[in-house]
Amino acid sequence: MAEKRQRVVIVGAGFGGLECAKKLEGGPTDVLLVDRHNYHVFSPLLYQVASSLLNPSDIAYPVRRVFAGSPNVRFRQADVQRIDFEARELHCAGEVVIGYDQLVIAAGSTTNFFGNRAIEHRALGLKSLSEALQLRNHILGCLEAASACEDRDEQQAWMTFVIVGGGPTGVEYAGALAELMKLVLEGEYPGIAVSPRIVVVEGRDQLLGAFSKKLGDYAERRLEKLGVEVVTGTVVASADDRTVTLKNGEVIEARTLVWSAGVKPASLAAIERVPHTERSRRIEVDPHFRLRGESRVFAIGDIAGKQDADGGELPMLSAPAMQAGRYVGEFIMAHLSDPETESPTTAPFRYLDKGTMATIGRNAAVCSLGGLEMTGLLGWLAWLLVHIYYLIGYRNRLVVLWSWAWNYIWYDRPVRIITRAKRARLPHSPELVSSED
Amino acid sequence: MAEKRQRVVIVGAGFGGLECAKKLEGGPTDVLLVDRHNYHVFSPLLYQVASSLLNPSDIAYPVRRVFAGSPNVRFRQADVQRIDFEARELHCAGEVVIGYDQLVIAAGSTTNFFGNRAIEHRALGLKSLSEALQLRNHILGCLEAASACEDRDEQQAWMTFVIVGGGPTGVEYAGALAELMKLVLEGEYPGIAVSPRIVVVEGRDQLLGAFSKKLGDYAERRLEKLGVEVVTGTVVASADDRTVTLKNGEVIEARTLVWSAGVKPASLAAIERVPHTERSRRIEVDPHFRLRGESRVFAIGDIAGKQDADGGELPMLSAPAMQAGRYVGEFIMAHLSDPETESPTTAPFRYLDKGTMATIGRNAAVCSLGGLEMTGLLGWLAWLLVHIYYLIGYRNRLVVLWSWAWNYIWYDRPVRIITRAKRARLPHSPELVSSED
Repeated sequence: MAEKRQRVVIVGAGFGGLECAKKLEGGPTDVLLVDRHNYHVFSPLLYQVASSLLNPSDIAYPVRRVFAGSPNVRFRQADVQRIDFEARELHCAGEVVIGYDQLVIAAGSTTNFFGNRAIEHRALGLKSLSEALQLRNHILGCLEAASACEDRDEQQAWMTFVIVGGGPTGVEYAGALAELMKLVLEGEYPGIAVSPRIVVVEGRDQLLGAFSKKLGDYAERRLEKLGVEVVTGTVVASADDRTVTLKNGEVIEARTLVWSAGVKPASLAAIERVPHTERSRRIEVDPHFRLRGESRVFAIGDIAGKQDADGGELPMLSAPAMQAGRYVGEFIMAHLSDPETESPTTAPFRYLDKGTMATIGRNAAVCSLGGLEMTGLLGWLAWLLVHIYYLIGYRNRLVVLWSWAWNYIWYDRPVRIITRAKRARLPHSPELVSSED
Repeated sequence: MAEKRQRVVIVGAGFGGLECAKKLEGGPTDVLLVDRHNYHVFSPLLYQVASSLLNPSDIAYPVRRVFAGSPNVRFRQADVQRIDFEARELHCAGEVVIGYDQLVIAAGSTTNFFGNRAIEHRALGLKSLSEALQLRNHILGCLEAASACEDRDEQQAWMTFVIVGGGPTGVEYAGALAELMKLVLEGEYPGIAVSPRIVVVEGRDQLLGAFSKKLGDYAERRLEKLGVEVVTGTVVASADDRTVTLKNGEVIEARTLVWSAGVKPASLAAIERVPHTERSRRIEVDPHFRLRGESRVFAIGDIAGKQDADGGELPMLSAPAMQAGRYVGEFIMAHLSDPETESPTTAPFRYLDKGTMATIGRNAAVCSLGGLEMTGLLGWLAWLLVHIYYLIGYRNRLVVLWSWAWNYIWYDRPVRIITRAKRARLPHSPELVSSED
């Protein structure tokens, strides 16, 4: 007698969830991948959408297409709001209920404003596609507003951009924004008499805290060469529509506050009963990514507070999420007959750190690969190769490569249009489309 | 003593306004081009954005870039709401006032619902970029909703798409939608058990009323070959969120109503004092596109009810708008010293009809060029060449060509992501960005 196929539900089609589903594809389980959006987004390049270089579809890929014709992987667009571990059910917006036999929580992370409501109300994030488009529209709108402005101080305020957070996202966006400004201000905005002011604010003593001091200093020098001001050792204390106030007392007249100073696990991690790590509020998991006391439930990626070999937590990056996704996919396959085993035969997960990188601008990036550090053109080429390699889908890779080449040769930013889809008309998949207000 | 340079203000960066500004570029006037958006949109291809083939930026081009480095053409993003002919001033949203010496009104047209409020509330338009993105999101949302649906009738309603209007836009979108459905339903939506139903409703006896009966019949046959139902000789009487009712009594359960049944001049044409044509409500102009009694003010393109040689009006198409834009540019240059002349030396405008065309799908289009009519592959190739030629900008042309080639070879629709920029945060260029709700 054939056993009933187990249903594995994966929440989140980010790097972790997607890899997990791929690992389970073709196997003896039924896999349902659930996401609020109908696409997977290559989030490391969101900053290029926000700086008018790439189109949304260059870095976003329909999940259904990844699994087109798949024998056992299905997709469902739904917004998971609550998990009932007893009944083994997901409760989603619109009263949709999805049952599971085994569950992988890979819901990712959102922007962390550390409880500062004023900043949350004011700042522009860079964690989702709709935020990247919002930021693109905002920046282009600032240029139009500055151009229409007769008061010089007012104009300078429109042309002042404060970026909070000197991690990879902040550094990459600052560099891309400086290049965008340089490009468009040459000839397209004769009405703008002031120079753009881009300020990166970082709480630590150096940029790119995850890298060595040497690489952080290099990034700072390169940004300054692009005209970016770097302020380290202080944080933003408050902000309103017209000013940003730093903890060191400095008040900056700026209409733009970009927030890349931290992320926190997605709100699904806050469900009751699930133990959290103390500091990061990520879901506590065992060496196999299983939730404590819920051996049929796994958590991977940014939402999971998995202990690293050296006692720290896995970084909130795509690489550990992808490795965890593959690990959990294999783990599930290996223990199908006894999903609640207390002594798994699979060896505990080990994170293989292949290194990290960040690009600052034209011909300038920093890479830290094992003991090897690279900067400048070499680092930039390494960055380029790795990102092209990891972009999902053959066409996307070519299109992005084409856009990069075009930008490199012609210093162009083609996607400079201020646009926004009109609001959805029908209450059909309502919370999905119209939530992005 | 040098005379003061005259200021020519052009309202609208569509086909007419853009050509007029180009004609005036480098001349002895100061030109200010005003538009609500910061881009020119190649509107004949909006339906390809709405059917997930092209990205917005493939058919939208920043106006400022067209005139980058121009000696005398400037751009301003503003929403003109009223014209004060006495004071020679434009009054825009946000209390912005723009003065002119000569004015060219090229504000285009909007969707015409013929006063039917229920339909206006319900239908999706295809006249602007934000509408095209709304329609794209809606169609992809319908697929998700259908896929999540267990009731077969309900599923069929999500998969039924009524397109009102059998002109080029309706025919082209119906064909593109049929091809999109065929593509994605093969493998990506195993949960959808019903066939998509696409219905084109046209009030006249044939599709493509501007073409010959032969070409209209050809279009009908080709659409039917793609599985599209064509209903002629009736119109939509009413619609709600769940049904569309035709005047012939038929009630169609459909969640989608696309409206391409007519356009009307933009609301600027409704300003007091400006004489209108009786039927079309377009601004009356003399043989030189000057408003009656306002010799410093011109109206061109869809908003102008210019008499044709045979007593009719110029069609609301890009070609006559472009020709009128160039004509008015030349006219202004020729009469700079005497802008209010009653006996211009310039010969009256004559429209050169180079023909019209519409594509139905793969290898199928209709072209009517003078006496010559083409269909099938030949017509399709002609359509292709003309559209590539007219797309503004070298890069856009290549990107679009690439997308078409990709689609042609791989039957792919890459831009299948449901996304929408988050709402603008700041009240800065507010009416411009956030108006697209």
